[in-house]
Amino acid sequence: MYKKINNIIFDKKFKFLKKYLKKNIFTNIILLLDVNTKNKCLNLILKKINFLKNYKIIIIKSGEKYKNINTCIKIWEKLISFKIDKNSIIINIGGGVITDIGGFISSLFKRGIKFINIPTTLLGMIDASIGGKNGINFKNLKNEIGIIKNPILIIINYLFIKTLPKKEIFSGLGELLKYGLIFNKKYWYFLKKINFNNYNDINWNKIIYKAVFIKNKIVNKDPEEILGFRKILNFGHTIGHAIESFFLYKKKYISHGKSISLGMLCESWISKKINNLKNKEYIEIYNEIIKYYKIIKIKEKYFNKIINFIKNDKKNYNNNIYFCLLKKIGKCSFNKKVNKDLILMSLKNMNKIYYFKKKKKNDKR
Amino acid sequence: MYKKINNIIFDKKFKFLKKYLKKNIFTNIILLLDVNTKNKCLNLILKKINFLKNYKIIIIKSGEKYKNINTCIKIWEKLISFKIDKNSIIINIGGGVITDIGGFISSLFKRGIKFINIPTTLLGMIDASIGGKNGINFKNLKNEIGIIKNPILIIINYLFIKTLPKKEIFSGLGELLKYGLIFNKKYWYFLKKINFNNYNDINWNKIIYKAVFIKNKIVNKDPEEILGFRKILNFGHTIGHAIESFFLYKKKYISHGKSISLGMLCESWISKKINNLKNKEYIEIYNEIIKYYKIIKIKEKYFNKIINFIKNDKKNYNNNIYFCLLKKIGKCSFNKKVNKDLILMSLKNMNKIYYFKKKKKNDKR
Repeated sequence: MYKKINNIIFDKKFKFLKKYLKKNIFTNIILLLDVNTKNKCLNLILKKINFLKNYKIIIIKSGEKYKNINTCIKIWEKLISFKIDKNSIIINIGGGVITDIGGFISSLFKRGIKFINIPTTLLGMIDASIGGKNGINFKNLKNEIGIIKNPILIIINYLFIKTLPKKEIFSGLGELLKYGLIFNKKYWYFLKKINFNNYNDINWNKIIYKAVFIKNKIVNKDPEEILGFRKILNFGHTIGHAIESFFLYKKKYISHGKSISLGMLCESWISKKINNLKNKEYIEIYNEIIKYYKIIKIKEKYFNKIINFIKNDKKNYNNNIYFCLLKKIGKCSFNKKVNKDLILMSLKNMNKIYYFKKKKKNDKR
Repeated sequence: MYKKINNIIFDKKFKFLKKYLKKNIFTNIILLLDVNTKNKCLNLILKKINFLKNYKIIIIKSGEKYKNINTCIKIWEKLISFKIDKNSIIINIGGGVITDIGGFISSLFKRGIKFINIPTTLLGMIDASIGGKNGINFKNLKNEIGIIKNPILIIINYLFIKTLPKKEIFSGLGELLKYGLIFNKKYWYFLKKINFNNYNDINWNKIIYKAVFIKNKIVNKDPEEILGFRKILNFGHTIGHAIESFFLYKKKYISHGKSISLGMLCESWISKKINNLKNKEYIEIYNEIIKYYKIIKIKEKYFNKIINFIKNDKKNYNNNIYFCLLKKIGKCSFNKKVNKDLILMSLKNMNKIYYFKKKKKNDKR
């Protein structure tokens, strides 16, 4: 039997997928991948689902910067040229970019056709592919255009983890740490015992299963983000997304895991200032983050740019900026109004850490 | 008090709208209009909702051909430049093009912000603005990209009918006739007694209220088009949309009412052939349609083009073409497989009528 959580199937050998596609007859099956997944995962999958005969493949360019409306247009044009009807299914195979854009274009094509997500990255498995949030970036704003719509199935196959380079592991790690911090103290301490720098020797099954379990639990308490509770998933993301967007705009790459870990660092500092997070716990979070991510500095002349990105955050309203802030490790509040000065101070604090660590390094020499 | 059907308010003096906007505090109110509605309706509305102080206006070009992704991009850019947050509301004021595209861009901006429809055309009031189908045309295909999402409110104000030119009345009339044919025999006979050629002397209130009532009833039996029942609203649209798309592609304008009336003529003929519609009723439908719409001819060399448009119809699957066909006046079946030859014969039949009527006219001279 398969381990499953709702529509999320832990499907080691794609046996469930095979069964599903045999039971449900679709006019067409379309595989959506990017160049990266095509090179690294397509053969692996096609070998396992060799029963698949009539399928069509659409390949898009790899990378966050192609998660945009132009790529959607190209995919829709392809679907039309393939004469895809409403009784077809799109299988999105890849990381967060593919499942985000694949869910988006599927939900809108002919007012919505079914889709399956097969995440191939750590971040995709434990976050992006779960919860139904689909979308694209627009005008340098992350996920500014999107829709909440769940895939028919999410197929999680641990095998892919072995294909991942280091940067992909660390791009997902930030979200794992977040799940512990916002919702599950036990998971935080479970993760703390693991040294992710030796990521090749880790047993990923439990790490991933638990992360999926936590994310799914949070989402199901508030699927459409109407109550607000789901927002706690945004911890670290208010500043983290702004950092990510800022570097996207500067045409420099910084991984999602790093952006939101630095975001969590800043937002934990703010939590300490106005949400009663204890200093001892802040230091604990700080130490865990710097174990895996190098602190960056952002020149003060760019702070306004960062603030502008934050102002565009979807959680804001009535011209106020709202954060999700930790009360303690394992517990997070949402809809917390934070003023601009405090945000700037948290960025200055990050710069201070950067110089402190640099000095320490130099002193050692 | 206001007459209302679910979220559809018959709001003669915009008093309900006024109350709603006073009760619910939005960060921003955005009015979306096209050049036409701006010129003809904006002042009328602003006079009635003069309590509205802080609002922003976005104007797009008029016409079906601007219901496309480029217009969406321009609107989203404007919303971002206005710093619109999720706690804002978009009020779509206009015909079907505005409510279709307005609902679409609202549902996707920041993964969805609230919107209100104020239809100003007959077609908008009795069809386009109701039922939550939003979308845009793509590659000459009608509503190829879209989403089902309901507005918070639909405000129907009969006053606008008086501002409409003849072609707008006849653009809506086709759908009125359709409601009678597919679902309500009584409504059909009620409409038959009215001479819409004297549209200035007609009391529209009852006509519109009943049409809204029927459409709403059909939609609510199957809001997401999962059961299939909602498809009966597509009667006349399989061939009608293909005719409309064909002329759009030929850069000639043909109104929605005319397209789908000609579509209903062809599809009634097919209903007679394979769905037991009685010849007597077919003749009755034929007579009612030619009372208001001039029959056109489509050269046989273009028939394949028409078939290609039909093949792209959203109701099709497994490479078959499916129609909604009348059983009798007031009753419609859906998911009826129709082969290509029969469709071609129905188009030839329309051409025959065209030549017959032309000859008759010449004979008279």
